[in-house]
Amino acid sequence: MRHILRLIWPRPLILHLKQTIHCCSLLSVNRRPISQKFEKQTGTMDHEIEEMLAPLRVAVKEQGDIVKKLKEEKAPDIDIQKAVSELKHRKKTLEDKELDLGAKDNIDRGKMEDLLKQKFFFDQSFSIYGGVNGLYDFGPMGCAVKANLLQAWRNFFILEEQMLEVDCSMLTPEPVLVASGHVERFQDTMVKDLKTGDCYRADHLIEATFEKMLADKKVDAEKKTEIKKLMPLIDGMSMEDMGKTIAQYNMKAPLTNNDLSDPMEFNLMFSTAIGPTGHIKGYLRPETAQGIFVNFKRLLNFNQGKLPFAAAQIGNAFRNEISPRSGLLRVREFTMAEIEHFCDPVLKDHPKFHTVADLDVVLYSACNQMDGKSPQVWKLGEAVKQKLIANETLGYFMGRIQLFMLRCGIDKKKLRFRQHMSNEMAHYACDCWDAECKTTYGWVECVGCADRSCYDLNQHTKATGTRLVAEKRLQTPKDVDVVECTSNKGTLGKVFKKDAKVIGEYLAGLTSADCDKIENDFSSNGESQITVGEQTFTLKPDMIAVKRYKKKVHVEELVPSVIEPSFGIGRVMYAMFEHNFKIRDGDEQRSYFSLPAIIAPYKCSVLPLSNKDSFIPFVRELSKALTLNDISHRVDDSSGSIGKRYARTDAIAIPYGVTIDFDTLNAPHTATLRERDSMKQIRAPLEEIPLIVKALSTAVRTWEDVLNNYPIFEQQEATKEK
Amino acid sequence: MRHILRLIWPRPLILHLKQTIHCCSLLSVNRRPISQKFEKQTGTMDHEIEEMLAPLRVAVKEQGDIVKKLKEEKAPDIDIQKAVSELKHRKKTLEDKELDLGAKDNIDRGKMEDLLKQKFFFDQSFSIYGGVNGLYDFGPMGCAVKANLLQAWRNFFILEEQMLEVDCSMLTPEPVLVASGHVERFQDTMVKDLKTGDCYRADHLIEATFEKMLADKKVDAEKKTEIKKLMPLIDGMSMEDMGKTIAQYNMKAPLTNNDLSDPMEFNLMFSTAIGPTGHIKGYLRPETAQGIFVNFKRLLNFNQGKLPFAAAQIGNAFRNEISPRSGLLRVREFTMAEIEHFCDPVLKDHPKFHTVADLDVVLYSACNQMDGKSPQVWKLGEAVKQKLIANETLGYFMGRIQLFMLRCGIDKKKLRFRQHMSNEMAHYACDCWDAECKTTYGWVECVGCADRSCYDLNQHTKATGTRLVAEKRLQTPKDVDVVECTSNKGTLGKVFKKDAKVIGEYLAGLTSADCDKIENDFSSNGESQITVGEQTFTLKPDMIAVKRYKKKVHVEELVPSVIEPSFGIGRVMYAMFEHNFKIRDGDEQRSYFSLPAIIAPYKCSVLPLSNKDSFIPFVRELSKALTLNDISHRVDDSSGSIGKRYARTDAIAIPYGVTIDFDTLNAPHTATLRERDSMKQIRAPLEEIPLIVKALSTAVRTWEDVLNNYPIFEQQEATKEK
Repeated sequence: MRHILRLIWPRPLILHLKQTIHCCSLLSVNRRPISQKFEKQTGTMDHEIEEMLAPLRVAVKEQGDIVKKLKEEKAPDIDIQKAVSELKHRKKTLEDKELDLGAKDNIDRGKMEDLLKQKFFFDQSFSIYGGVNGLYDFGPMGCAVKANLLQAWRNFFILEEQMLEVDCSMLTPEPVLVASGHVERFQDTMVKDLKTGDCYRADHLIEATFEKMLADKKVDAEKKTEIKKLMPLIDGMSMEDMGKTIAQYNMKAPLTNNDLSDPMEFNLMFSTAIGPTGHIKGYLRPETAQGIFVNFKRLLNFNQGKLPFAAAQIGNAFRNEISPRSGLLRVREFTMAEIEHFCDPVLKDHPKFHTVADLDVVLYSACNQMDGKSPQVWKLGEAVKQKLIANETLGYFMGRIQLFMLRCGIDKKKLRFRQHMSNEMAHYACDCWDAECKTTYGWVECVGCADRSCYDLNQHTKATGTRLVAEKRLQTPKDVDVVECTSNKGTLGKVFKKDAKVIGEYLAGLTSADCDKIENDFSSNGESQITVGEQTFTLKPDMIAVKRYKKKVHVEELVPSVIEPSFGIGRVMYAMFEHNFKIRDGDEQRSYFSLPAIIAPYKCSVLPLSNKDSFIPFVRELSKALTLNDISHRVDDSSGSIGKRYARTDAIAIPYGVTIDFDTLNAPHTATLRERDSMKQIRAPLEEIPLIVKALSTAVRTWEDVLNNYPIFEQQEATKEK
Repeated sequence: MRHILRLIWPRPLILHLKQTIHCCSLLSVNRRPISQKFEKQTGTMDHEIEEMLAPLRVAVKEQGDIVKKLKEEKAPDIDIQKAVSELKHRKKTLEDKELDLGAKDNIDRGKMEDLLKQKFFFDQSFSIYGGVNGLYDFGPMGCAVKANLLQAWRNFFILEEQMLEVDCSMLTPEPVLVASGHVERFQDTMVKDLKTGDCYRADHLIEATFEKMLADKKVDAEKKTEIKKLMPLIDGMSMEDMGKTIAQYNMKAPLTNNDLSDPMEFNLMFSTAIGPTGHIKGYLRPETAQGIFVNFKRLLNFNQGKLPFAAAQIGNAFRNEISPRSGLLRVREFTMAEIEHFCDPVLKDHPKFHTVADLDVVLYSACNQMDGKSPQVWKLGEAVKQKLIANETLGYFMGRIQLFMLRCGIDKKKLRFRQHMSNEMAHYACDCWDAECKTTYGWVECVGCADRSCYDLNQHTKATGTRLVAEKRLQTPKDVDVVECTSNKGTLGKVFKKDAKVIGEYLAGLTSADCDKIENDFSSNGESQITVGEQTFTLKPDMIAVKRYKKKVHVEELVPSVIEPSFGIGRVMYAMFEHNFKIRDGDEQRSYFSLPAIIAPYKCSVLPLSNKDSFIPFVRELSKALTLNDISHRVDDSSGSIGKRYARTDAIAIPYGVTIDFDTLNAPHTATLRERDSMKQIRAPLEEIPLIVKALSTAVRTWEDVLNNYPIFEQQEATKEK
């Protein structure tokens, strides 16, 4: 159960329960005009389904109310924790039922995975060596899809917003990840098979064992009732609780039936030693974000000291998952694309927000989750106005995320934003929404979008003493009280000799409170002691002078807030594949991917009708012209029938196909151009084809427009396919 | 000294000395028409310089002849080794002198590094935490340069040649790197400071200590003579030799003067544990190539079983250098772009070789190196014809490498191909040429281009039992002798019961020699013993039949050869920066990079002449139009004078700049367009400017052409810069 609540890119993970109540109660009572102004939930849930879900919704709402009440009453942590676990369990039951009853896509995941493997989109790494779980290699098709996705991301985010892209080291020395909290908190609880040493996530093991027991006829009814009560509590169990549960139910290792170790914490980072001495402990970064934070000063400087600005990074990160599963969804090495938008904490409006304010987005708010309600369609502008989304910048990025996902072929009906509930949000975040895609594995978080306040910059400032702050020009200069401690160099020098210099420097850096203390010491004791480094010195009133005066300042320092959209590229790709996996009507064998042209691995195929020699020069010329126009393409001059070859190019998602046929040989030379999804074809002059494909694949022109401007080529694929 | 001979991406490194003599002697005597047909060495070496170099050349030749003679005589290894060390030393002396006397570029490296840091092209990683040697972060400008370089590489190699790009895991389990030879051989010798634990490359330390002693007045002449004799031998020293030398000269740790440990081998790979058990030892890959080799079967299958084909990979690799230095040239984490071209070992011609045959390339052949001669200009076609370059495919890639490097702004006068001498080439390679760029650090290898024969595929086949082979259709089918051992299932079953099946399978897999042995056993002993798994079985003649017959086969298996161009992206970038670092005549402060537009981080700047409000809408509109045309650009509306802002955009290599000035405000709206290197400006209609810049930055149009078609804007930068 825990896994559905764990992002693939969480920052320090331990959930903090002692939080003030989130916007929930306020919003749902006073501000939110759910039923009047906004359409209801997308999708096709009909009345009958809603009736079946009703009792589950009530159950969630009941428990949500209990949690709220406990928090209001500031009940003991343990009680809140238990209530929250039960709430999560009820939410999960509701969501499972919703997925079960909802519109079925009939995606045959096995068939899709076969196609992905067979065409080498991706496959397990090192499989000739037996493979390693959680590591995947992208083949030519997957690699091209990934490169296209990343290029689209660069254009859509970095170029459009003039973000500052960086490319930082993956090897990261320990102190950086101590400061970020990863060394202490980035961990899961596991148990070991005492004989084989195999490891299991403790919560997964307990859950699986309970499920097995519930299905076991030999387990008596009383015990089953007991287990049913415990199931919802697994997620909230401490390490000790898990140990007790494993012992109490005498749980064994699933494969061997061997005894299990006590539960232990396991840090999910890969560690290594940097340099030959072995003294510099390092990790492979678990996320790309820290590289941006530690470069904040340079980036601010590059931006001429001005806020707001955004930095972005595309790169690999690593997590030593205890038991990787679900293909690309939970892996040990993965590509992320992260944005850190730095802004004044009190100015989170966004100049381009109006460009997304009218977008319809499906929001699954924390309130709705607590109340057992469905996600709802909102206008982004309204959601920010109603403070459901914390601020304009967060809302702006949510809009941009949605636009990007749709452009990449994500199905709008299978995309929603789920808000983190206050009890699952990391303690430093003030609002967080996950863009989730519906897959055969359920709703999967693909992009996180969080307002992380100033947590990270503060942490690195504390750890290094380098002040990661920006300056803000005040609209009107203000007077501030300054207290300064200046030293009498003559006297200091005489008394302290060579130490006088460091004492002078120390005094110059004192805060107002430090100065007050020294003055108080003087008036009470006639002297004051200070500690510089490891030495203590006694000051007398004749050595220093404390000055107090007013100063006009024009700027003030601030620690910027960070809004962070964070993309799990592998997960986005997986959702893209599922949402675009198609099977031709009436032909089970012809499966293909309807990926949009900007994502498709090749934009175009070139197919000579047969292996007749006279076709060759035309194929070569066309290929050359396509390359000149930077159109990635694949020539398939193998011996299969044209229909089989179309099927083959469909399978690797090539959106357009050009066939060189007998008519091509005669002047004026023409060829046919076929579109993948509609399978319609036109005939066009050979020299125009590269430009047509270029225009189509960059979305400058639509296929409809092409259809209307060239003669349709009527020959059916089926007749060719003999 | 060793470092100049070490590639940044060597495969198993130990040099094998027992090799047949390379083509050298044959070529230089019989086939190579050096002085008649080909121009001599590029550059500006005049007669006087050549006179100064002459004795050094003679010294190299003398020693080269000695090495050749020793090899011909099959002299003991140790003698050859010593002679080779001396040869390398003499070569280095010659090269240092050549660099010293050659045309001076007067590149101020310190100034260039300042600019690279100040504009955050790249800088040390984690420097707020004190930094880690050998790790660098690329800032916005460096990151854009890198992304552009990689995109250009993709277009130039992958798209043009329809290569199969893959993206494989960096985490690599140990057995893969045992097979490739890295676990055993990828190492350097180091010594430790016994008190602090600091580590030093043993050869570097010995060399540095000797150099210090030679400069020390207190060291007597006799000792200096001794040291001078030893200097050239350092490179050939065994671990034991180094230990003795350190002890004999009582060498100490350079910084602390502490005692040193005995020399020890240090593997340069970063190790880690994959998975929670700690049982799966893994490394961060030291090169990207192995990911391609282990996927060979899938790639061949993707290519429908046909040879030749090339696979390519861009990605990071890691080397735990003992003492990283020279900025981007020797780092611990770096990006590579590697191509593995698989072909029939007896068919290494290339269908596109004619497209590069007429290229002039500067070749520094092994012969010339042995003979103390300079590199020479060759036509690629002639070099392949004369067998100086081993085959057409290798030659084709060398040509492509050169074309690519020049396109990216590498100075043709500072590019050469240096052939590995037989004594420095890895034992499996049959020919290897490094594309070297001249920098202020000397000649630096940036791209390797090797014919690696079938070494890697064979190694992985041996390690896994998976036959990494291709099938080749025979021109005429051939008859082969088949020997087969078929089992009499009835008899086997009766005797061996349930074991009969595995025995049958075992028999079906026997080789011809195995069958012979069984038949011999039968005739001598009347029975034969076989071992299947851990069991031994005794066979009798009635259980099996050995059949011998002829079979017509139409295909034969072959292990493909691999030609490998391998780019060190960081090194190429460093050379690009040096070759394009310029300072304006008469203004020491105005340094800039003249990077070509395809590489430049932004293609265009947009500068309002002043911060007048009426300029704003024009800036916005232009920026929008540029974005629409995918032209990366930077708006600089800060308060500096226009001259200062031009200088700023020059510093980050922006090739074109548009200025919105007072004339822009009046219809028809126009703006000025300035080119960075010439600083010339034209005035053009505002709406045409995005298209002009697009055409310029994609090399569809030249600046000369633009200059000829629009009115020149004459106002001088100097007059604006107040």
